[in-house]
Amino acid sequence: MSNSQYQPPLEDIQFQLEAFGYNDVASLPEFEMYDLETAMECLEGAGDVLINSWMTVNKKGDEDGVHFNSQDNSVQLPDGFKEVYDEYRESGYMAMKYPEQFGGGGAPHMLSVLLGEIEIAANKSLSMCPGLSHGLISALKAYGSEEQKETWIPNLVTGEWSGTMCLTEPQSGTDLGLVNTTAIPDGDSYRLNGSKIWITFGEHDLTENIIHLVLARLPDAPAGIKGISAFIVPKFTLDGRRNGIFCTGLDHKMGIHASPTCVISMEDAEGYLVGLPHKGMRAMFVMMNEARLSVGIEGLSLSEAAYQEALAFAKERRQGRSLNPSRNDTNAAADNILVHPDVRRLLLRQKSTIEAMRGLACFTSKHIDLSHHHPEEKQREISDDLVALLTPVVKSFFTDRGFLNTSDAMQLCGGIGYTSEIPIEQYMRDVRIAMIYEGTNHVQALDLVGRKLVLGGGRLLRRFAKSVEILLTECAADSRLLEFVGPTKQAADSLTQLTMHMAQVGMADQESAAAMASEYLNVFGYVTFAFSWLMQCKEAINRDDAYAKTKLKTARFFYKHVLPELESHKQIVLQGKDAIMDFDESEF
Amino acid sequence: MSNSQYQPPLEDIQFQLEAFGYNDVASLPEFEMYDLETAMECLEGAGDVLINSWMTVNKKGDEDGVHFNSQDNSVQLPDGFKEVYDEYRESGYMAMKYPEQFGGGGAPHMLSVLLGEIEIAANKSLSMCPGLSHGLISALKAYGSEEQKETWIPNLVTGEWSGTMCLTEPQSGTDLGLVNTTAIPDGDSYRLNGSKIWITFGEHDLTENIIHLVLARLPDAPAGIKGISAFIVPKFTLDGRRNGIFCTGLDHKMGIHASPTCVISMEDAEGYLVGLPHKGMRAMFVMMNEARLSVGIEGLSLSEAAYQEALAFAKERRQGRSLNPSRNDTNAAADNILVHPDVRRLLLRQKSTIEAMRGLACFTSKHIDLSHHHPEEKQREISDDLVALLTPVVKSFFTDRGFLNTSDAMQLCGGIGYTSEIPIEQYMRDVRIAMIYEGTNHVQALDLVGRKLVLGGGRLLRRFAKSVEILLTECAADSRLLEFVGPTKQAADSLTQLTMHMAQVGMADQESAAAMASEYLNVFGYVTFAFSWLMQCKEAINRDDAYAKTKLKTARFFYKHVLPELESHKQIVLQGKDAIMDFDESEF
Repeated sequence: MSNSQYQPPLEDIQFQLEAFGYNDVASLPEFEMYDLETAMECLEGAGDVLINSWMTVNKKGDEDGVHFNSQDNSVQLPDGFKEVYDEYRESGYMAMKYPEQFGGGGAPHMLSVLLGEIEIAANKSLSMCPGLSHGLISALKAYGSEEQKETWIPNLVTGEWSGTMCLTEPQSGTDLGLVNTTAIPDGDSYRLNGSKIWITFGEHDLTENIIHLVLARLPDAPAGIKGISAFIVPKFTLDGRRNGIFCTGLDHKMGIHASPTCVISMEDAEGYLVGLPHKGMRAMFVMMNEARLSVGIEGLSLSEAAYQEALAFAKERRQGRSLNPSRNDTNAAADNILVHPDVRRLLLRQKSTIEAMRGLACFTSKHIDLSHHHPEEKQREISDDLVALLTPVVKSFFTDRGFLNTSDAMQLCGGIGYTSEIPIEQYMRDVRIAMIYEGTNHVQALDLVGRKLVLGGGRLLRRFAKSVEILLTECAADSRLLEFVGPTKQAADSLTQLTMHMAQVGMADQESAAAMASEYLNVFGYVTFAFSWLMQCKEAINRDDAYAKTKLKTARFFYKHVLPELESHKQIVLQGKDAIMDFDESEF
Repeated sequence: MSNSQYQPPLEDIQFQLEAFGYNDVASLPEFEMYDLETAMECLEGAGDVLINSWMTVNKKGDEDGVHFNSQDNSVQLPDGFKEVYDEYRESGYMAMKYPEQFGGGGAPHMLSVLLGEIEIAANKSLSMCPGLSHGLISALKAYGSEEQKETWIPNLVTGEWSGTMCLTEPQSGTDLGLVNTTAIPDGDSYRLNGSKIWITFGEHDLTENIIHLVLARLPDAPAGIKGISAFIVPKFTLDGRRNGIFCTGLDHKMGIHASPTCVISMEDAEGYLVGLPHKGMRAMFVMMNEARLSVGIEGLSLSEAAYQEALAFAKERRQGRSLNPSRNDTNAAADNILVHPDVRRLLLRQKSTIEAMRGLACFTSKHIDLSHHHPEEKQREISDDLVALLTPVVKSFFTDRGFLNTSDAMQLCGGIGYTSEIPIEQYMRDVRIAMIYEGTNHVQALDLVGRKLVLGGGRLLRRFAKSVEILLTECAADSRLLEFVGPTKQAADSLTQLTMHMAQVGMADQESAAAMASEYLNVFGYVTFAFSWLMQCKEAINRDDAYAKTKLKTARFFYKHVLPELESHKQIVLQGKDAIMDFDESEF
């Protein structure tokens, strides 16, 4: 049924879990049931279910899309989606990452992020439904009342209900201060009126109920972002009434065709305040930060899926002859294209960045676990800082690279890659949105430069720099690692230098900092990749197996053929804002 | 009917024609009817027709696609395509670029390339039909017998017939030596049997007849690329019989949905040899070289169309406030997003590369005209060398950048850019194929490095270097231009250095040269952009008008924020092949 080659990359996942110290997480009392072996069994089991369910309808979902019925405001997902959703839901794997106290599996983030990678590769559109539920659960856990938690979370955990985030309005996207949906008190609850757009899985036929988290303004709300409150607005109230929240249309998108993107209209919808009045952005940010990491994973995930397609094609396709006669396959009229240097170059650009991303995903998610569960407060704070710092980088840099990687995968497949014969073109269309939603990648850069870098006078970055420094010192002691230590140190030094530059410039002129933010984030991204690779080299160097040997080769490619990309971004950061701002509106 | 903002960029076109010396072409006797004023009138007139015809069905064509009827092997284009094709055809503008001797307008290439830019922006799918006819006319002009020219060209010129290029077979794409379609002599003609794939406009309902140029092997053909002959195979023979050449299916593609990509089957199809036996690649290369330039223009054209959309959106959309209070629009709840530095940065990345491309397109097409028509043989040779050298760069670098530019345009529009509300996502899908067809961009790099650089011991590059050197010397004399001269010289020096490196390495090891070819081409591309901008600065510096003033600002952005991208590519070229080739097949 599926035209996809994808298999979960279990060998690399296990390597990464070892390289990034999964045992530091598994040894916490909360996660004692998830030792490394169990974790790998879970991923393998979930992967089997996903490949036999979600992945079988991924292409069909892209072709058929979702359908809106204006008669009853219903949205129909493509045939088979309900069945494969239920199949995975009932397997128990879908709830693995939800909190144990509400009936979930209670898996550590370090594991659930990798499970997410597989889910997205199997069916990105469908993965967004439980993904949003996950975010809503986290927001309610953090800011809901005890009653709200007990009321709403358990059915989200089983997947019988699903969640949404209702932020954007036609006039209010990046700038949420412009939200004007209203919420008027009505006894214990509120009546909401307004319109929302871009509401993923805002209406669908997979679950019995849909629980919306809605941003709105109370009558006494201050203007702007400080007057936003958050409300639970269910599609059906607990006594079974159809609530006044409706889908009134769908957007037609370049990709993720099986994920309904809804226009939502509220007419006296019953809602329940979450957290304090006017403090709704807090709850939304819990949800959004989690979503940002998982959007970053979309870049990794579809890179991997596209890479596997491209590799399979390269092994099969025969064109031309190797320039190295020892590689010639004399039994055939031509060699497979894997003999050609440029095909290898394109594959290795993908492979080396995929493995860098996966490592960094492990590092970041490990620190999410440590920030919640480590016995020492100091470590919890450090980990929390690292996660806050790396979230915008993961979201932005992974999705930019994900788009590039799917394009490289397409390129090496030639004409076939441009057709729906193989799913690369779908992956490219599906991954492109990840650069935009949950805050565009430039919004991430502003978060990094304007918020994360300045917190505590640069404390977050100092903590990351310290991790890098410790790793460099450890690795510098092993002469076999010096070829990797040198360029990592050079990249880290560039980042230090640019950060000081940004701090100086930004203090004097915020507009300059904003002008340089995206390119600064790029430099940061390459440094995190170099850090990720050095961690992996440190693990590989003392192992004898073939996989570890290949790791070092892939690292070598990364340091020679990818990391130098940093240099241009660095030069561009140093140009400042003048050439950008010196235009009148009429001159564009 | 159309959702597009596009208007032909006539102001920039006129500037470029002046900057790149259009009068050198217009003063040739062949082109005396096309002085600058007439040329601009033609473009304006053609643009008006195209916007009111082709562009009105561009979105519909994307949505409806083409339909294959397996009962009669026919292909139906979307509703309205036949009408708008005829409208443009009958306006006379479509034949403007075809040779005068066969009833065309006989316009210089320098003009027809810019006409092509507008046609592609109005409807890329549809532009491919007359585009292929143009290529076929050129091939027949160069290698057809007098009788063949008289027989086939005039109806191609009127657009009553259309042409195709039938090269690729399932086992034979980049490697055309693997072609195995056969041609057996049968009296004065030949009988062809075999299958072709990726045949653009291989079947359709726009024209009365379709004239295929087919690569096939004669019975006594040597193996490989030296045994390929070229044949005319019409859909209908001159006496009105349906020939044995049929469409048997269509490919489903990411974009260019209104351009039929056909599987073509030949069963004893009647064909006529073009040129000498076994020398078919010559005719095909005339067609292909022309096609390569025009594919490069696709990158320019859809960049421009996407830029205009993004700019219109940026002026309209209001989010947030400028960090510079003097730009705040106090009459509205928010400023338009054009006040934000990153929005400007994204726009200027597009604008500055679009104008670089357009200038280089003018330079290259001017030399096509000079290579054919200049009275002095020496100049004809020089121009011919420049065109041969720049063709792979234009094809490859323009299309890579075109894809990037449409992505930048989408990014600044946020969620809207990802939907079909505005046409940017269509432009992105439509332009992506340009990196693949007519020889993938890496094939262009191999052409540049393995063929063009070595011809005459480096003669072609020396001629380009001389053009750059003369320009640098001229500009260095004007102190106002020094800020642009410096980085141009530095870029040119980098290219010289890398070329020597490539020559040394490539002499010893062709595989190393192949490994570095794509990145070398990138460096070359940036140098051509810098050259293009310096030519424009030289023109602008002595003009007082507002447009010239903006030119210098855009140039400044290019030199500071785009040209530094060269640096990374340069560093990567110097890494050689080792880290790429050091993998066994099982290690990927």
